[in-house]
Amino acid sequence: MENPPGVGELTPPDRTLLGPGPSPVHPRVLRAMSTPLVGHLDPAFVDIMDETQDLLRYAFRTENEWTLPVSGTGSAAMEAAIGNLVEPGETMLVPTNGYFGGRMAEMARRAGGEVVHVDAPWGEPLDPADVQDAFDAHQPDVFGFVHAETSTGVRQPQVPELTRIAHSHDALVVADTVTSLGGVELRVDDWNIDAAYAGPQKCLSCPPGASPLTLNDDAMDKVLSRDTPSRSWYLDLSLLEGYWGDERAYHHTAPVTNVYALREALRLVAEEGIEERWARHRRVAGALKSGVEAMGLELEPDDDYWLPSLNAVRVPDGVTDTGVIDYLRDHYDLEIAGGLGDLDGEIFRIGCMGHGAREKNVAFLLTALADALDSLGADVDPAGGIDAARDSL
Amino acid sequence: MENPPGVGELTPPDRTLLGPGPSPVHPRVLRAMSTPLVGHLDPAFVDIMDETQDLLRYAFRTENEWTLPVSGTGSAAMEAAIGNLVEPGETMLVPTNGYFGGRMAEMARRAGGEVVHVDAPWGEPLDPADVQDAFDAHQPDVFGFVHAETSTGVRQPQVPELTRIAHSHDALVVADTVTSLGGVELRVDDWNIDAAYAGPQKCLSCPPGASPLTLNDDAMDKVLSRDTPSRSWYLDLSLLEGYWGDERAYHHTAPVTNVYALREALRLVAEEGIEERWARHRRVAGALKSGVEAMGLELEPDDDYWLPSLNAVRVPDGVTDTGVIDYLRDHYDLEIAGGLGDLDGEIFRIGCMGHGAREKNVAFLLTALADALDSLGADVDPAGGIDAARDSL
Repeated sequence: MENPPGVGELTPPDRTLLGPGPSPVHPRVLRAMSTPLVGHLDPAFVDIMDETQDLLRYAFRTENEWTLPVSGTGSAAMEAAIGNLVEPGETMLVPTNGYFGGRMAEMARRAGGEVVHVDAPWGEPLDPADVQDAFDAHQPDVFGFVHAETSTGVRQPQVPELTRIAHSHDALVVADTVTSLGGVELRVDDWNIDAAYAGPQKCLSCPPGASPLTLNDDAMDKVLSRDTPSRSWYLDLSLLEGYWGDERAYHHTAPVTNVYALREALRLVAEEGIEERWARHRRVAGALKSGVEAMGLELEPDDDYWLPSLNAVRVPDGVTDTGVIDYLRDHYDLEIAGGLGDLDGEIFRIGCMGHGAREKNVAFLLTALADALDSLGADVDPAGGIDAARDSL
Repeated sequence: MENPPGVGELTPPDRTLLGPGPSPVHPRVLRAMSTPLVGHLDPAFVDIMDETQDLLRYAFRTENEWTLPVSGTGSAAMEAAIGNLVEPGETMLVPTNGYFGGRMAEMARRAGGEVVHVDAPWGEPLDPADVQDAFDAHQPDVFGFVHAETSTGVRQPQVPELTRIAHSHDALVVADTVTSLGGVELRVDDWNIDAAYAGPQKCLSCPPGASPLTLNDDAMDKVLSRDTPSRSWYLDLSLLEGYWGDERAYHHTAPVTNVYALREALRLVAEEGIEERWARHRRVAGALKSGVEAMGLELEPDDDYWLPSLNAVRVPDGVTDTGVIDYLRDHYDLEIAGGLGDLDGEIFRIGCMGHGAREKNVAFLLTALADALDSLGADVDPAGGIDAARDSL
C-alpha cells in the first residue's frame, strides 16, 4: 500500500459479551494491560511468571510443576498438548460429540498420529462404557476428551471414571477445559488428568493471547523422552520448559502484556475462591436456565450434563438463529452466538462466564431476548422469564 | 495448589527498554489495550481486521492481499511462514551468520525439509556471490535470509540481488524482518520478497502477541496447493486464510486486544510516515553510534551494514557484559542486553526502536553507560559521548 491508509481512532462498539467467548473482561484486567512492559527476561518478569504459574496451579487444582501460559490463543495450548504428547505412529482416541473433538483429531493427524473415535451424538457426553470398548478395540496411546464442549454446552461427567479406564490401558489423558477452567468444577489432580489446556477468554474473563496449560510428570516425561522433536518449534514444550522452568532461558519473546492480564484475572479467581466461583457460575447460570425455560425455550443438554458456562438453547419455531442474534446485536449491543457443525442453525449459545456471570447480565439477556423473540414472531410466549430467573436465585 | 497463593498487585519496575525488544510502548498503544473487547467474529471487529491489514500493507510497502497478524509472537509468524512454505522433502537454504538463521533451519527441519547453508561469519551479512554458489550447488526450493539480525546488529544489504538469484532458480524467498519492519528501510514489493514476517515489539513498539506476516501470490499459491497440510493446525495459513480472507470463517479466537494494540501502533507509523520513520531511526541511532564510538567503544558491524535499530557494541576490556547490564538495570532501571550464541559475552545489544528511538533516550543511555563503565573500571574513557551524539544530530 503506497500511501498511509486513513484509519481513525479505535472506537469499537460497547458490547455485552454473552456468547461463547471472549467474555466480558474485568476492569482490573483491562487496566493491567495498559501497564508499561518490562523485558521478557527481566528478573522482575521472572517473578511475575512464577506468580502466574502459582495462580494457574490454584485454578487448575493441581500441583503440577509444568503449568504455564502458552503464547497464543486456546488453540495454541491445545496444539501444544496434542502435538507434544502424540508421537508419529501413535494412536489418539478422540470423541465425536462436538466441534472440538474434531479439532483434536485434526491436530493429532498433523502430529503424525493415527486417530480412532469414541462415538456419542452432538449434545451428549461420552459414556464410560463406550470409552472402555474403544480402548479394548484400539489400545490408543493418548485419549482426549472435552470437559466442557463449547459447541454443544455439554459438560462431561464421570471424568475420574474416564481417566481410570485410560490409565488401566497405559494411555495418557488430555482434557479440553477451555470453557470450564475458572467457572466449572475441575480438579486436575484429584481426577488424574495428565494434561489439560484452556482459553483465558472464557471463565477467566481475560483477553485471549496467553493460554493455560498443565501437564503432570507422566505427561512431561513423555514429552522429554520423545524419539523425534515435536513438529512445531514454537509449541515445543521441551523448549518452552527451558523458559518457564528453572532455567529461564530465552526461547521466544513472551507476550508480556497478556501475562500481566492473565495474572490479574487469576488474582480475581484467587480472591473469590475457586469453589465459590464455581458456585457463582452454577447459581447465575441456573437463573438464566430457569428464565429461558420459563419462556418456553428448551436447553439442548440434559440437566445431568448441563454446562453452566455455556448454555445451548434450542432456536424456537418462527425465528432463525441469525435473525435473533442480529437483533440483539443491533438493538442491544449484546452478543450471543449460533451453533457450529451439526448444530448450526439449531441452537443459540449463551455464555455465562467469569465477569459475565452476574445477575445483571441474566436480567439484561432475558429482557432483550424476550423482545427479540416477540418482535421477530417466535412461537413462544416470552413473558415470565425474568420472574422465573429471580425466583431461582 | 490447594490454597490461593498470596499474589499482590501488579507493580513491575518502570524500565527504559533499550535492549533487543520489547521496546518502549507508546502511551496510545497501552491505552488501546485497555479497550473493552468485542467478539472476534463481530462485524465491528471485521472492520478492525481490515484496517489493521491495510496498515500492515503500508508498513511492509506491499500490495499483498495475504497480509495479516499471526496470533502469537514473532516466532509464531516465523514458523507460519516456514512451516507452510517448506513441504516435506523440500530443501531450504538458510544463512549461518546469526542466531535467527539457525532458528530458520530448526523450523525447516520440523516442517520435514532438508536444510542447506550459505555461510558468513556472525557479524557479517551474506555475500550475493555465496548465495549464488549455494543455489548452484543445492538448488533449494526456499531461501530464507535475515534482513535485520537481532543477534548481531547486521543489516543485510543488496536484498534485490538476493531475491533475483533465488527467483532465477525458481525458489521462494522468506525474509526475517523482525527488527526492521517500521524502523529500517524495507520494501517487500520493490525488492521482490515472497514472504516476510516480523515481531510487533521491535520497531513498531507494540506489545508482543500478534505478529505481522505478508505473502505474495506466488507464496500463497504454494501454500494453497500443498500435497499435505502443514504440520501445525494453529499456524496453517490455508485455514487462517478463511478467517483473515474474504470468508471471515471461525478458525481460532483472535487475540482481540493484541490486534487493537497493533492497529494503534500502525496508526502511529502511518501518521509519522514510513520513510520519515526510517529516517528518524537512522538519525537517532546515528547519534547513539557516534556517542558510543566517541567513548572508545566499537560497533561490531561495519558501517555498510550497520542496523540502526539494534546496535551491537563490543564489550570493552576491564568489564563483563553482565556486570554492565546489571549495573544499568539496578542503578538506572535501564534495559540493554548481551550477546547470543557466537557473540555471547562479546557484545552489548542496544536497541533503538520505535517509540524508544528518541534523542532523550540516547542522552540517558550514554550518561548511564558512561557511569557504568567508569564505576566498573572499563579500559575506556567514557567522557565525550554525549557531546559527540549531540554533534551528530
